[in-house]
Amino acid sequence: MNHITLPSDFALTTGPFPGSRKHYLTTTSGLQVPFREVTLDPSAREEPVRLYDTSGPYSDPSARICIEEGLSRPRDAWVLARGDVEAYDGRPVQPQDNGNVGPAHAVPEFPLQRRPLRARDGKAVTQLAYARAGIITPEMEYVAVRENLGLAKARETLSRDGVPFEADIPDEITPEWVRAEVAAGRAIIPANINHGELEPMAIGRNFLVKINANIGNSAVTSGVAEEVEKMVWSIRWGADTVMDLSTGRNIHHIREWIMRNSPVPIGTVPLYQALEKVDGIAENLSWEVYRDTLIEQCEQGVDYFTIHAGLLLSHIPLTANRVTGIVSRGGSIMAKWCLAHHRENFLYTRFPEICEILRAYDVAVSLGDGLRPGSIADANDAAQFAELETLGELTKIAWQHDVQVMIEGPGHVPMHKIKANVALQQKLCGDAPFYTLGPLVTDIAPGYDHITSAIGASMIGWFGTAMLCYVTPKEHLGLPDREDVRQGVVTYKIAAHAADLAKGHPAARLRDDALSRARFSFRWHDQFNLSLDPEKALEFHDETLPKDAHKEAHFCSMCGPKFCSMKISHEVRDHAGRERQEGMAEMADKFRQQGGDLYVTIPDPFTATQG
Amino acid sequence: MNHITLPSDFALTTGPFPGSRKHYLTTTSGLQVPFREVTLDPSAREEPVRLYDTSGPYSDPSARICIEEGLSRPRDAWVLARGDVEAYDGRPVQPQDNGNVGPAHAVPEFPLQRRPLRARDGKAVTQLAYARAGIITPEMEYVAVRENLGLAKARETLSRDGVPFEADIPDEITPEWVRAEVAAGRAIIPANINHGELEPMAIGRNFLVKINANIGNSAVTSGVAEEVEKMVWSIRWGADTVMDLSTGRNIHHIREWIMRNSPVPIGTVPLYQALEKVDGIAENLSWEVYRDTLIEQCEQGVDYFTIHAGLLLSHIPLTANRVTGIVSRGGSIMAKWCLAHHRENFLYTRFPEICEILRAYDVAVSLGDGLRPGSIADANDAAQFAELETLGELTKIAWQHDVQVMIEGPGHVPMHKIKANVALQQKLCGDAPFYTLGPLVTDIAPGYDHITSAIGASMIGWFGTAMLCYVTPKEHLGLPDREDVRQGVVTYKIAAHAADLAKGHPAARLRDDALSRARFSFRWHDQFNLSLDPEKALEFHDETLPKDAHKEAHFCSMCGPKFCSMKISHEVRDHAGRERQEGMAEMADKFRQQGGDLYVTIPDPFTATQG
Repeated sequence: MNHITLPSDFALTTGPFPGSRKHYLTTTSGLQVPFREVTLDPSAREEPVRLYDTSGPYSDPSARICIEEGLSRPRDAWVLARGDVEAYDGRPVQPQDNGNVGPAHAVPEFPLQRRPLRARDGKAVTQLAYARAGIITPEMEYVAVRENLGLAKARETLSRDGVPFEADIPDEITPEWVRAEVAAGRAIIPANINHGELEPMAIGRNFLVKINANIGNSAVTSGVAEEVEKMVWSIRWGADTVMDLSTGRNIHHIREWIMRNSPVPIGTVPLYQALEKVDGIAENLSWEVYRDTLIEQCEQGVDYFTIHAGLLLSHIPLTANRVTGIVSRGGSIMAKWCLAHHRENFLYTRFPEICEILRAYDVAVSLGDGLRPGSIADANDAAQFAELETLGELTKIAWQHDVQVMIEGPGHVPMHKIKANVALQQKLCGDAPFYTLGPLVTDIAPGYDHITSAIGASMIGWFGTAMLCYVTPKEHLGLPDREDVRQGVVTYKIAAHAADLAKGHPAARLRDDALSRARFSFRWHDQFNLSLDPEKALEFHDETLPKDAHKEAHFCSMCGPKFCSMKISHEVRDHAGRERQEGMAEMADKFRQQGGDLYVTIPDPFTATQG
Repeated sequence: MNHITLPSDFALTTGPFPGSRKHYLTTTSGLQVPFREVTLDPSAREEPVRLYDTSGPYSDPSARICIEEGLSRPRDAWVLARGDVEAYDGRPVQPQDNGNVGPAHAVPEFPLQRRPLRARDGKAVTQLAYARAGIITPEMEYVAVRENLGLAKARETLSRDGVPFEADIPDEITPEWVRAEVAAGRAIIPANINHGELEPMAIGRNFLVKINANIGNSAVTSGVAEEVEKMVWSIRWGADTVMDLSTGRNIHHIREWIMRNSPVPIGTVPLYQALEKVDGIAENLSWEVYRDTLIEQCEQGVDYFTIHAGLLLSHIPLTANRVTGIVSRGGSIMAKWCLAHHRENFLYTRFPEICEILRAYDVAVSLGDGLRPGSIADANDAAQFAELETLGELTKIAWQHDVQVMIEGPGHVPMHKIKANVALQQKLCGDAPFYTLGPLVTDIAPGYDHITSAIGASMIGWFGTAMLCYVTPKEHLGLPDREDVRQGVVTYKIAAHAADLAKGHPAARLRDDALSRARFSFRWHDQFNLSLDPEKALEFHDETLPKDAHKEAHFCSMCGPKFCSMKISHEVRDHAGRERQEGMAEMADKFRQQGGDLYVTIPDPFTATQG
């Protein structure tokens, strides 16, 4: 057995966020569901703020982290307890699985091998099949507790507020409700039976909006430790799922290291690896090579596959007059194959067979949008919507096979054309979850496309998109580094959270309110610790006011003590409080009498669009 | 006379953007209107792309830049030609105008003195007064040419696209149309008659969406050169106006240096300086001190004043139960004054007198939102909307005095409550231009509030807001540095442009399309040069592919040559082209017959809200 040699200075990023501790809730059936709790300054007299936690055991100081052992696999017991799977001798690893890498550049195999599981006797072992059969799985129970975060507290303190469009978020998430959402196809729980390390999560418009971060090795051989760290780093900042878009050498082995160390669902585009196996020549792709790749990745535990099955031969001419043609890698590869053979996309013609494979491992399908617009000019065009109609057709086929499915969406779309994408997707795809890249609302800001896309992502999330694929500042320009990934993930947490607020998710505002109270009370550390990026907030604060005493300061560094509106506002509040006792009350009453018509409720124009 | 000593290593940022040159259009009456033209690679066979240019003479290599002389003053001739102003001996500079700064910390006076102008015989010398009288001023003509940017080209190549809500953008901007918009109060041209260096611009919902950048000295004495450079730096990246929010020492002198070197309108909050004159004690503010400060700044040429006249004594109790009280500096200062004296805000009671002063210099008033919400919890509350109603009342008074007026808006607002702000502002303030800070769509991302606010700014700009006040990454945390200002301005250019696109501004998409064509043709330099931040785009590209040869590369650095979707897409297009000639045409026809119903127009739900 190869022994892995990690760089001597290498360490995965571990440990809690400042002011935070890991907290586990135990479900009725004994599952341990992780949260992050932010403890506030005693002067706040507030309970700790409980946050959804994607970071896995890495942020738990009591967890044993050993990259060569992988994470523990509590889910194996859940899967085996269902009695419908069998272990078998998996497909042997082939040289071409790793890009025929020579010994000089080969990375070591993951040290522990395990026989893969698959469904016995053609059974459907998917969360969808169980949900339809009325079975509440541990995965559903886990998701219910996880999503229920703060809802009880919200019920006590907040009234419902928001414009949810078609979303219908309950006051309490029960396991039965999760089951019903999965059964209806409105939500998926990507959870390959071979991913025992998984902390299950749900993607659906009635759940918290999720985000995905893409990682991948570069052309230069990356070490396995760096690749695992990319995943750990992404989930630390809040990525709910991670797509491994690696190409080139060592692709199989690196994926195995990632899978065995990942508590979040891992998605891939199997076409990329299949193309590597035929030396990058699209014309040489075949169903056999693709099928073999699917099984290889199913056995490893990949949780969802992007499959570009909706791009048809007949759609290709529709792209001929586009400003930016086909910008999806998978889409362009399949278009080339279709034209070269003048045959229909084999991912389309073989889609029922693909579903048969996926249902044996519970891999969810993410129907790729190979014809998504790559520019404002191409948004919402005939090519894009023709493919979307085909994705609707494929959604039904996936459901017929008990396969969980979500739908990928654009791309580049100006603000006024975003809502139409959601409406059409919901109509054509029967409410299957929508998973979009951005969209970018303008083309003119390379270097800032995390921002152009977060604008679109916030809006499309509000309108009902279930998961947002992040974009980094390097989009269109280069490979993201560590800081770019952090920027991209945090920016997308903003978009997802802004969408939750606007949809009226009952618990979303608890964090905003806690942070704003901390801000108004000059509890600087609480403000930092409650923010999406506590380290950045502290760092920025210290650039202007570096001393520790300034963390206690009752003013902002922007204005200094004399001009601090918050400080003056406190004086005003104190003063108003005294005045009120001494006669200000009459004044205020008088104002309220005069100004009763100030309290008019403004009809929100968006609400009118729901009917 | 003091002689200024600039740091030996100091230089203002000058010179053109990469690939760009300054281009002046001459109007029928001989005015020179500046643009930036981006020349494309000859292989593109495209005309240079003409861009709106806020950067002033600093980006013109042929302009003489001497900070001690200031910019040339072409506007003086326009103002004098109207024959309704007189030069007079201005108010002498007082020690307290500069915070009683001692000789050790004093900055030099601007070397050139000039007698200020004011209206003769109580005449109204405002653009609004002229517009109402049917007079088309040079300022209006200048604005018409400037805004007309690309419209003719757009008419030739693009069909109208967008959801404009209440906006009504013509196919061609004529001077008469500008006059009519100003006369109706729907647009303002901030243009103090003492600001001869100004390149006039308009703020109104039927014009391009504008952005403002805030600058200001810090508590530590800043040198004048650094302060002028902050302004030059802001407008280089695209700020349409600059607000000087300086407090403390040297405030008068620094403002003079900025005014004399600024081609964009400068706004201030006179209350800040007035408060300095009474040693920072809000209770000691008086009408006399405030009035004196107004005249001081009118004479210097400040183009618009933020005045917190809408915060009434009776509104203050409405803030008592807010999560974040009063977060506007001006608002909190006036609230404190009101409570201390138990009297109505003197900015409100004296507002007609304020307008009398402003009309003599044509200073526009920006009605401050002293009660804007500082948190999601406080958005759209009674305090905010009570003040907005008062702002509507004050708008009418300003208009009665021929004073140009715009209205400031929030703040922190979740997405679903943004539209209501625009609707109510338009209703209460008779379509006076709206000028908003963000809004931030969540409170939980200090360190990233340029992004949280750009999401809200894009949307509110689309809905009809005329100008967006930028937010930097340091918001809530510290003082922005040079890089923060660049990030803030570029982020807000994204928001403004995204809004223009969504409103369907006829010419907005020309830049997107040119950049996307460059991207699809692998014209890397054209792509960089057309972007909002060419230097950042180049820098990011070079991090991954540093060689010059890679600027010619027909692939993206993200995927490498084998996986480049753009490259494959070109092959697909070539292939499809050949196939079409050889029989693919029938196929495509057949598809179109089958799929005719794919081309359905999706009714945009937003459109339905216009009725």
